[in-house]
Amino acid sequence: MHQRPPLTPLAEALPSTVPFVGPENQERQRGSAFRARLGANESGFGPAPSVIEAMAQAAGDMWKYCDPDNFDLKAALARHLAIPARNIVIGEGIDGLLGLAVRLYAGPGDVVVTSLGAYPTFNFHVAGFGARLVTVPYRNDREDLDGLADAVKREGARVVYLSNPDNPMGTWWEAADIEAFVAAIPETTLILLDEAYGETGPVSAQPSIDFSRPNLVRLRTFSKAYGLAGLRCGYAFGDAEVIRGFEKVRNHYGINKMAQVAAEAALADQDYLRWVVARVAAGRERIAGIARDNGLAPLASATNFVTIDCGSDGAFALRVLQGMLSRGVFIRKPIAPVLDRCIRVSVGPEEELAIFEEELPKALEDARG
Amino acid sequence: MHQRPPLTPLAEALPSTVPFVGPENQERQRGSAFRARLGANESGFGPAPSVIEAMAQAAGDMWKYCDPDNFDLKAALARHLAIPARNIVIGEGIDGLLGLAVRLYAGPGDVVVTSLGAYPTFNFHVAGFGARLVTVPYRNDREDLDGLADAVKREGARVVYLSNPDNPMGTWWEAADIEAFVAAIPETTLILLDEAYGETGPVSAQPSIDFSRPNLVRLRTFSKAYGLAGLRCGYAFGDAEVIRGFEKVRNHYGINKMAQVAAEAALADQDYLRWVVARVAAGRERIAGIARDNGLAPLASATNFVTIDCGSDGAFALRVLQGMLSRGVFIRKPIAPVLDRCIRVSVGPEEELAIFEEELPKALEDARG
Repeated sequence: MHQRPPLTPLAEALPSTVPFVGPENQERQRGSAFRARLGANESGFGPAPSVIEAMAQAAGDMWKYCDPDNFDLKAALARHLAIPARNIVIGEGIDGLLGLAVRLYAGPGDVVVTSLGAYPTFNFHVAGFGARLVTVPYRNDREDLDGLADAVKREGARVVYLSNPDNPMGTWWEAADIEAFVAAIPETTLILLDEAYGETGPVSAQPSIDFSRPNLVRLRTFSKAYGLAGLRCGYAFGDAEVIRGFEKVRNHYGINKMAQVAAEAALADQDYLRWVVARVAAGRERIAGIARDNGLAPLASATNFVTIDCGSDGAFALRVLQGMLSRGVFIRKPIAPVLDRCIRVSVGPEEELAIFEEELPKALEDARG
Repeated sequence: MHQRPPLTPLAEALPSTVPFVGPENQERQRGSAFRARLGANESGFGPAPSVIEAMAQAAGDMWKYCDPDNFDLKAALARHLAIPARNIVIGEGIDGLLGLAVRLYAGPGDVVVTSLGAYPTFNFHVAGFGARLVTVPYRNDREDLDGLADAVKREGARVVYLSNPDNPMGTWWEAADIEAFVAAIPETTLILLDEAYGETGPVSAQPSIDFSRPNLVRLRTFSKAYGLAGLRCGYAFGDAEVIRGFEKVRNHYGINKMAQVAAEAALADQDYLRWVVARVAAGRERIAGIARDNGLAPLASATNFVTIDCGSDGAFALRVLQGMLSRGVFIRKPIAPVLDRCIRVSVGPEEELAIFEEELPKALEDARG
């Protein structure tokens, strides 16, 4: 019998289980494909035709390593955001950037604050670097800005995470509220403002961009409205010196070249983005209507999904979820207390929403059993 | 004046400079594209036509997140390697997997052993997690197996890195030597055996695959012979429990879907791989011949590049390198003492090697100046 090499104490303490279950895994378990893929907040409308064409054209170039500086994509984003390129860092999705930020700012035992039931991948990173997560409950299905700020100050947090618009609830705060929150956070605490759903929300929910607060890092992605979740490309922007700190630890050749090509092409096709955003807004109405037709209460949403209050407890909503999954409709649900009374349905093409409409009453009937 | 949030002490101590300079950066500096791209050990022969077609077909699907289990690709690799899927982990290139391995096994102050002048990205990860790097000089342009094993034992190293075939020298050890090395390393030390160039080397340089030594993790990639460097996809295989440990810290949605599709298609087209490998072997002969025609000494190579002894010191080889770069020929050179007397030239298509052949005498003449 051979020994195994010892993990670091930090790594030894982490679970080896896969924390995230993808729809493909569920399809393998059930032995057939889902009829509707409405659970991962992807954009079922797909990337722009111009972006698909750019990818096809670039396929033969994939023998080349990516440009580790991400120069062209950063330049395109700088033009798009009207900020200098030095204020931008590209990452392997917001997921990758969140991991780097936690690694840079929160060591073992340091406190990190988030909302109870917010993005689980962020929590995975916090645990992975040995920091201590402090959670603040949602209030009226929104992230509790005052509660988060209080927790930051009480605990001396090194990092605080906030998503606006919010996942998994779809709710949002207006820019003035976000600005007041930022002002309330000590300058020594890094604020990670996740704006993955920024494009589908009201413009009034986005603070204007300035770098007066060096501790504010805002994160956006090509995974949602731009329809490129599979390519893993996000970006962060903020104070130039804070942004430069990511150079210390990022995988310099980590952004795949196809993502560089596709993201740049996607930025160039704002007409398509506007078309998608309009479809998302219409899809939210459609989902909300289906919910109301079934006696449920859809939450107002600024994202590409609608969270629906099933009107009872978490156990009931879980039965609804399971009923939908068993009928081939991939959706998800929040898991934290109170939020867990809801299911979460991503906007998708009408064919898939029609399947959702057809199956929801049956799942509800079974759940009421 | 606002404060900045403090980095962790470990992050604070790391440099913020970009450690890796890509050819695109050099092209921007010089104001024109390179005429020949022979410096990054990419495969200028490109991906297989079947793989390019698979990428083009998959472009429209990029709105979906990847399967976080990498199920299909792992299954394909399991068939290819004739091992169970549970012994395999997929990563964002070997680069990404090396970072995860260091993170799992080497904490602040722990010793990690590598060769002086070996893969710099590995060293970047070691520094990034605060471990202490101990280097062993090459011996006769090969990694010094006895020296590495001695250093591991003397220093109580937690991790040792070895590439076979070697980058940047192109040299290699036979399987029996590697096996003896593995047997000489304590079971409590993780061995990272980087086989990025495995496909282009002699089969006799690859130990047969068994998992009798849980501390041996072997790493391979789709970046080299398979011609997919831009997609960032590598894999590691070894003891199932050691492999499962990567689940603790990997970015579960980190492998882009295009890489999953392309890598699976590439594995399915072994005819193309054989064609590339034959081209690489012929290209090595071609580069070696050019070197000899110019009075230089090419090293025997098992990789997709040839390292050429310029017959003098590091300063001379640097002048040769600079002369080639200024003539539009992108090549690189080793930087560690003794090795630095060489330049390193990747195999590429004949058009590019012809440019190399044309420019080398001029660069040599200038360097001798």
